[in-house]
This record gives sequence, structure tokens and C-alpha cells, in this order.
Amino acid sequence: MSLFADGAGLSRRRMLGVGAGVVATLAASGAVAEALVKPQAAGDRVLQIRNATMQINYAGVRFLIDPMMADQGAYPGFPGSAMSHLRNPLVPLPMPVSTLVDVDAVIVTHTHIDHWDEAAQRALPKTMPIFAQNGADADTIRSQGFSDVRILGADTMFRGVRLARTGGHHGGDRVLQAIPILDPVSGVVLSKSGHETVYVVGDTIWNDLVAAAITNHRPDVIILNAGYAHWVDLGPILMGPQDVLAVSKAAPNARLIATHMEAVNHCILSRADLRAFAEKEGFSTKLDIPRDGEWLAL
Amino acid sequence: MSLFADGAGLSRRRMLGVGAGVVATLAASGAVAEALVKPQAAGDRVLQIRNATMQINYAGVRFLIDPMMADQGAYPGFPGSAMSHLRNPLVPLPMPVSTLVDVDAVIVTHTHIDHWDEAAQRALPKTMPIFAQNGADADTIRSQGFSDVRILGADTMFRGVRLARTGGHHGGDRVLQAIPILDPVSGVVLSKSGHETVYVVGDTIWNDLVAAAITNHRPDVIILNAGYAHWVDLGPILMGPQDVLAVSKAAPNARLIATHMEAVNHCILSRADLRAFAEKEGFSTKLDIPRDGEWLAL
Repeated sequence: MSLFADGAGLSRRRMLGVGAGVVATLAASGAVAEALVKPQAAGDRVLQIRNATMQINYAGVRFLIDPMMADQGAYPGFPGSAMSHLRNPLVPLPMPVSTLVDVDAVIVTHTHIDHWDEAAQRALPKTMPIFAQNGADADTIRSQGFSDVRILGADTMFRGVRLARTGGHHGGDRVLQAIPILDPVSGVVLSKSGHETVYVVGDTIWNDLVAAAITNHRPDVIILNAGYAHWVDLGPILMGPQDVLAVSKAAPNARLIATHMEAVNHCILSRADLRAFAEKEGFSTKLDIPRDGEWLAL
Repeated sequence: MSLFADGAGLSRRRMLGVGAGVVATLAASGAVAEALVKPQAAGDRVLQIRNATMQINYAGVRFLIDPMMADQGAYPGFPGSAMSHLRNPLVPLPMPVSTLVDVDAVIVTHTHIDHWDEAAQRALPKTMPIFAQNGADADTIRSQGFSDVRILGADTMFRGVRLARTGGHHGGDRVLQAIPILDPVSGVVLSKSGHETVYVVGDTIWNDLVAAAITNHRPDVIILNAGYAHWVDLGPILMGPQDVLAVSKAAPNARLIATHMEAVNHCILSRADLRAFAEKEGFSTKLDIPRDGEWLAL
């Protein structure tokens, strides 16, 4: 797992098989194939904040994803879900809220409280550009006082970065029939020539929509919400070990980053157990599971 | 749910449909049917301590069941199980250890750490009578320094109380094939003429062994380990909502008491969700879910 604390290093992928110093030298000389070094990508990186909340610095633009900013224990657990007696979030933010809102735009994959909460709504400037998955979520967010709410489409541009909404389902048929309001959910693909293509999968299990997004966008990096959230006796509503394995097989050359773990009551899969599973299944070297507060270079 | 704090009251069952004062008067006169009042049972009660640790005061004998006495967070979560990133026990003991060891005997349904831990071994007098489920567990407990270790049989007497070992399985076939050391496990039935028959089910899911114990012993009270502990991708290893419902149907006249909840990492079912399920299924009035530190009259 790469640890990247100051934003100045080269990505783990670029370092694979080649010493970092060699890569830096070759990159400076322009002699390295684009597949190995994409010069414009220098500085692209991801900060795991807490739960699915991340900052993605991409082509010079700072995106905040799915901000949940409440204090530890601010909300009751989700009734009917695993461990509903625990209060959310289970853990504190790793840094002050004031430092987290210093971004250029926010992407809200859906408006469940563990992705878009009152604390985030209070903390963010009301003029912040907010990308919503659809008109209904956009209306909700506008009603919360935000003036620059945009809807993610298949080809939405923001400061030179292409954003493409992707689909998903927040569980299988059984759970969605019982709790239809779990859907709709979305993901987003960030792309720009010369940069790694990054697919933020969002709150979904593995299904045809995720497979289609991988086929269509050929992401270099896939950020997976892998906490395996469960509804009691209805089953999972988020990717678990087998889903992550399916993604790994569908995108054999992509790097995987797991998030949405160990922070809300119903996410039953620990980072350690996902790591152990990936080692057993042979895809551990392509998987990062950042700690809260950890930067990963792209 | 009855709350019984001083050991002086009448049981919930005896109060059903008859005012407590009337019952007391009738009991004193000897005019009440045995099914309504069993005079020798006065004082029988259960203390929910934490996890599956309970004290059962029965016919004047104080039994401590499955003592886990560690401080909150003393042990790592069980690797591979739900929420393994949480440390056990999740919650503190509700009273000092020194008050918990003042009993006449201990029953250890099996020697997993959440039922028989080093803290309990340190706290209990080494001459305390300890009942084990089989020779292997008895040898283990003797090796820990205890001098009066007895094996539960089908008809084991202790100070006038009949103890009968019952069977169980700590999960279904799939999980037991993957983790065979989960078994063996046991339960125990406490009985004495004139007292409610109490079935402590132990760490098992609903299966033929539990059904047989209900048929054979006709318990008045069934204490269920209902935390619905899960192994990730292998399934439950402890009763959950549907198991409790199955017990309720198999013993329609028995009172149910749920325990082994909200105290260790892998028990995903909350008290509130079990209560909501019981209300939906129509058996809530026969179910108690005591809080840690709560006495229930039998």
C-alpha cells in the first residue's frame, strides 16, 4: 500500500517495476512510454477522509466526494441494518472540517445521510459547485441553500475534467423490493487526456451496470465502496469480498482502492478481512485500502 | 418487559392477568393453581450481565453462566467475522467483577473467549464448582487451575437443582465445514419441582437439537443467544430473528429471554431490531430483552 503524505511523489503504478528515481529521470527526459508515465498526471491523488468521503485532486481540480462531516456518534444507526445499536459515524474525522471544505467542487453520488449530511451542508459554502446524480437530488440540494447545483450527465465538463455519471443498484432484488428508497444511486468517472481514468463506483453491489461502466470507460483506477453494508435478513447493500473480486476480474489491469469501510454501523467488512481475502485470491498487490487521513498518489 | 431490581417481587408471568397483591394473597392461602403460582419459585430470577454472561438464581442456588469479564476493548475482534475491526467486549460490565463472582457454581456452555475468558479465570475462586460441557472442556478448565470441574450430563444434580446438558450447533453446515472448531457447543436445562423449567440454549442456531430439547424438557423459560453473530460470507453462527421466531413457534407457551446481544463484534442484531421483529411477528409480549445490569423475575 502506498503512503503519500505530501503530494510530491510518483504514483505506485508508475513505480511498479521501476525505481522511482529512474522513473523521474526518464520522465524528465521524455523517453518513457505514456503507459508508464503520463506527465500531466503529476499531483493527481486521492485522500481517504472517512466513510465514502474522499478528496480527489485531479488535473489540478480538487473534488470532494460524498461529504459526511458529522462528529463521531452524531446519528443513530440505521434501523434494521447490521449493528443498528451503534451510532454513526463510528469514528471521528481525521482532520478539521475547515480543511476539508477547501475544494473546487463537490460530487454527491446520492443523498443518503452517510454521503451528504447536515454537517456537510452547514460547512460548505453555499456557492460551492455541487454535482448531483439527477434532478430530484439536485432539487433537494438546492432546497438546502446551494446556488450552483449541476446534474451529472454522460459528458459533463468541469474545469477541463470530464465527468460521466455511471449507474448502480444499492443492493440486490430482494433488498430493493423491501427498501426501494435505497435507489437510485450513481457513480462517476473522471477523465482527461494524459491522466489516469478514475471510476468512483458509489454505493452499489457488483452488477451489469458496474460491468458496463468498466467496459465503456476502461478505468485505470477504480474506487470501490467495499464496506459490505448489510440489512439484517435482507442481505448486502454494498460491495463485499466477492464483489471486489468480480471487479478485479472484470478490470484485470486496474488498480483498486477500497473505501466506505469501518465508519458506519452496517458496514460489516473490516479492512483487515478484505486485505486477507485479496491475499488469498491473489489480487492484493493491485488493491489499496487507505486509512482515514491517508493520501494515495494516482 | 419486567424490571426487577431488588429480588423481592413476583414474576411477570405470575402477575399476568392477576394483580400482584391478589396473587400474593392467594399464594399465601395455597388456593392458587400451581400453573399460576409455584410458591417455591419465589426469588428465582435472572440477571443479564453482558454478552451471554448471566446470573441465574434458581431454587436458592446462584449460577453464573458463561462468564466473560474482560474490560471493554480488551480483545481484538474475531478475524473473518462481521465488524472484526471492533474490539471486544464492545461495552463495559455493568457492575464490578467482585460482585459477579459471589455465586455458588459456574456453567460454561463452551470455552470460546466470549464465554470463558482469562479475566473470568482470574476473578473466580479456584475452588468454585465449574460445570463443563464435556471432558475436553473440563480438562481445559482444570489446566487453568480449577479444582472442582464437573461435566454436565443428562441428569446432573447440584444442591437440589437438576442440570441437563442440551446440544446445539454453532452455525449451519457451510460455516461449520469452513470453521469446524466452532463446535461443540451446549446448552443446559435447569429444573426442580415447583420451579419454572429454564432452558439456556447456548451458542447455537435453530436446528433439530434445539427442537428436541424443547420437546423433551418442555421449558417454561427459554434463554436465547440471539445476537445473530455472522462470519463474513459464511453466514450466521448464532440465532437471529427467524431462529427466535422458530423457537417461539416450537414453544408457544414459553417465555423467551434474549441475550448475547450488542456486546461482541460479530453480533449484528440489535435489541431494538429484535424487538421490532417480534412486534411485527406477534410474539413481542412473550419476549424479554434485558439490558445489561437488568434483573428479570422468573
